[in-house]
Amino acid sequence: MTELQMMGAKAKEAARSLACAGALKDKALLAMAQALLDHTGDILAANREDVEAARANGMSESLLDRLSLNEKRVAAMADGVRQVAAQTDPIGSVVSGIVRPNGMTIRRVRVPLGVVGIIYEARPNVTADAAALCLKAGNAVILRGGKEAIRSNSAILDCMAEAAVRAGLPDGAMQLVRDTSRASSVELMGLTGYLDVLIPRGGAGLIRSVVENSRVPVIETGVGNCHLFLDESADPQMAADIAVNGKTQRPSVCNALETMLVHEGAAEKLLPLVGRQLADRGVELRACPKALAILQAHGIPAVPACGEDWDTEFLDLILAVRVVSSFDEAAAHIAAHSSGHSECIVTENYANARRFTNEIDAAAVYVNCSTRFTDGGEFGLGAEIGISTQKLHARGPMGVNELTSTKFIIEGDGQIR
Amino acid sequence: MTELQMMGAKAKEAARSLACAGALKDKALLAMAQALLDHTGDILAANREDVEAARANGMSESLLDRLSLNEKRVAAMADGVRQVAAQTDPIGSVVSGIVRPNGMTIRRVRVPLGVVGIIYEARPNVTADAAALCLKAGNAVILRGGKEAIRSNSAILDCMAEAAVRAGLPDGAMQLVRDTSRASSVELMGLTGYLDVLIPRGGAGLIRSVVENSRVPVIETGVGNCHLFLDESADPQMAADIAVNGKTQRPSVCNALETMLVHEGAAEKLLPLVGRQLADRGVELRACPKALAILQAHGIPAVPACGEDWDTEFLDLILAVRVVSSFDEAAAHIAAHSSGHSECIVTENYANARRFTNEIDAAAVYVNCSTRFTDGGEFGLGAEIGISTQKLHARGPMGVNELTSTKFIIEGDGQIR
Repeated sequence: MTELQMMGAKAKEAARSLACAGALKDKALLAMAQALLDHTGDILAANREDVEAARANGMSESLLDRLSLNEKRVAAMADGVRQVAAQTDPIGSVVSGIVRPNGMTIRRVRVPLGVVGIIYEARPNVTADAAALCLKAGNAVILRGGKEAIRSNSAILDCMAEAAVRAGLPDGAMQLVRDTSRASSVELMGLTGYLDVLIPRGGAGLIRSVVENSRVPVIETGVGNCHLFLDESADPQMAADIAVNGKTQRPSVCNALETMLVHEGAAEKLLPLVGRQLADRGVELRACPKALAILQAHGIPAVPACGEDWDTEFLDLILAVRVVSSFDEAAAHIAAHSSGHSECIVTENYANARRFTNEIDAAAVYVNCSTRFTDGGEFGLGAEIGISTQKLHARGPMGVNELTSTKFIIEGDGQIR
Repeated sequence: MTELQMMGAKAKEAARSLACAGALKDKALLAMAQALLDHTGDILAANREDVEAARANGMSESLLDRLSLNEKRVAAMADGVRQVAAQTDPIGSVVSGIVRPNGMTIRRVRVPLGVVGIIYEARPNVTADAAALCLKAGNAVILRGGKEAIRSNSAILDCMAEAAVRAGLPDGAMQLVRDTSRASSVELMGLTGYLDVLIPRGGAGLIRSVVENSRVPVIETGVGNCHLFLDESADPQMAADIAVNGKTQRPSVCNALETMLVHEGAAEKLLPLVGRQLADRGVELRACPKALAILQAHGIPAVPACGEDWDTEFLDLILAVRVVSSFDEAAAHIAAHSSGHSECIVTENYANARRFTNEIDAAAVYVNCSTRFTDGGEFGLGAEIGISTQKLHARGPMGVNELTSTKFIIEGDGQIR
């Protein structure tokens, strides 16, 4: 048996008792939160080593910021774990139930998935978040973070796992893969028989690699090529507010806008106002010829869009802008280029609002509000393990329920068929 | 573009309009049912050719029976399609909904999966069943049946697809892969970008091959190594009824029993009665040493079990029998050998009934009724596309709801974050 297989076997054994652990899980979560606070010193010391090594290796400032911890960030992790403890336990809840004519009762109840694998990059807070959410749903978890964060992740996981065992949970409920070579990642993707699901959290490259190579079932998360369609009847100020919020409030996240489509019939009215407000906030507008002409006629800086701009998740202060001749052209553009994350229409037209929500195929479809709301907390799901852009099992923000499966319980008095 | 990629692109285009097809789907389903009846002659002629070729190639009688159609079977297919038409349309139904403090309304609604692939063997009725269920859920479907049934499948699909188009559905809503070489099956498993899910229906070999080789997400169906545990307090006659029904009513199906565990404290009482009734119906009992001694002492024919019997889906009049010393030993045996399909306890003990339903990890967990009930129709789900033995997306019998995904629809009045 390889080391990963042994971890898998240990996780599988732990999962059996976690499935029936009930309120013990919350006791452990509170102990884990306290352990994070108690070990802040160790965690920050380990993190400093990670940050120094990463800086020496030339990591960019924005990635260094994601990697870096401080007292406030550790406290926020602990707070996140406490919030997970406070959520309702999904396990055992009855999803549906019937009584059959022969008197049998059939209930569909929530059960854990079993063993969850998480592959992520250099964000140490994922270690605490993911461990807490998986535990709440009764799953054992195997975490495989990026090599740049290995010291931080080890310090975080060690204190949490120790607290969990002291609270009475089985050893093996949460484990961290210490070997951060590419080989360990490949082996994890082939760990069928031990892992029930693998969830990649990180950039587009990581996610693509996991989706293409994993033999364990994957939940695809994250990539968001999100569109805003300003319909002919759009309220100009609402259009500007939603465009500015969607593009500039936090450009580096998956629910930020990447392309704006503007109905031809209102482009002369909408584009100068919306374009000006975006440009004033430093957004580079990459425009189709029609949009470019209008923007330039109003002295708004813009550059010509190239073909690949329509398929790029910029994650930066860049927005592709296209004038479309009709609702149908907008819908066809979205169908061709959307990553199925979040799509928005701004309209005052009832029929078009209805068509958009019916016809657009994405995890989250918006009318007259910002795509930035696609988030587990904002949707009332509690803490979030990621945002699924696939259609199988879970779609959109995934909370603790999305880390569960169901089973049927059938009770009778001797019924046979 | 290969032929399969062209089929995929056509299916994807069709899926976009199927997602909003509403009641037109039911009109098409009724036309498809009528087309099956109208083309009974063509279908039976094609089927005769398949059966003759298969017989010449030495196909076994039981497989020939599954391949063979007659007027009654074609009428039953048409009836099945009509029943699917009569079910409630799942698309657009609201799964959950909330209003946020900022006034945004968020609804989670059912939407189609998109394009579904079905890989199956030599049962032509799957062609009609699967096409109807996929259509009802608003999905386009690509069917890839076994080469032994290609003439039957073509005749069935052709008349149904023609009727669907005449009823107003897009061409490409249902397509059959005519190339039944192994290469077409391999290519289908790699058709990411076109297929949203692949469902194998058939024997253990087919399912294992698809699960191991597919890069398209798979829903694993079917294999059932089902256990019956006769607890110490089991009612003897109920135990015998459920054992006999589970093993003999239809031994070739996945929800039939394969292993019976008997509590040591009641083995002397239960085994002679239950064993006799099974043996009288021609069941070969493969027993552990303790069970063997009891059975033989009562003159009931039995043979020693070998190790692999505990992991074998016999699909035949054979039952492995083991005496266990406790509830825990029974639960551990099931955890080690179950395929996660259907598991049953017969008990009069409240605490053990409760423990069994809580602790046993399977799609369907039974107390005091036959595992033979694991079936979409019996569970009130309507027609069934298969029985999932995985935990992701769908578990247990899959009806039309399990062929759907969801999306969030968020409506506001200019809300930003």
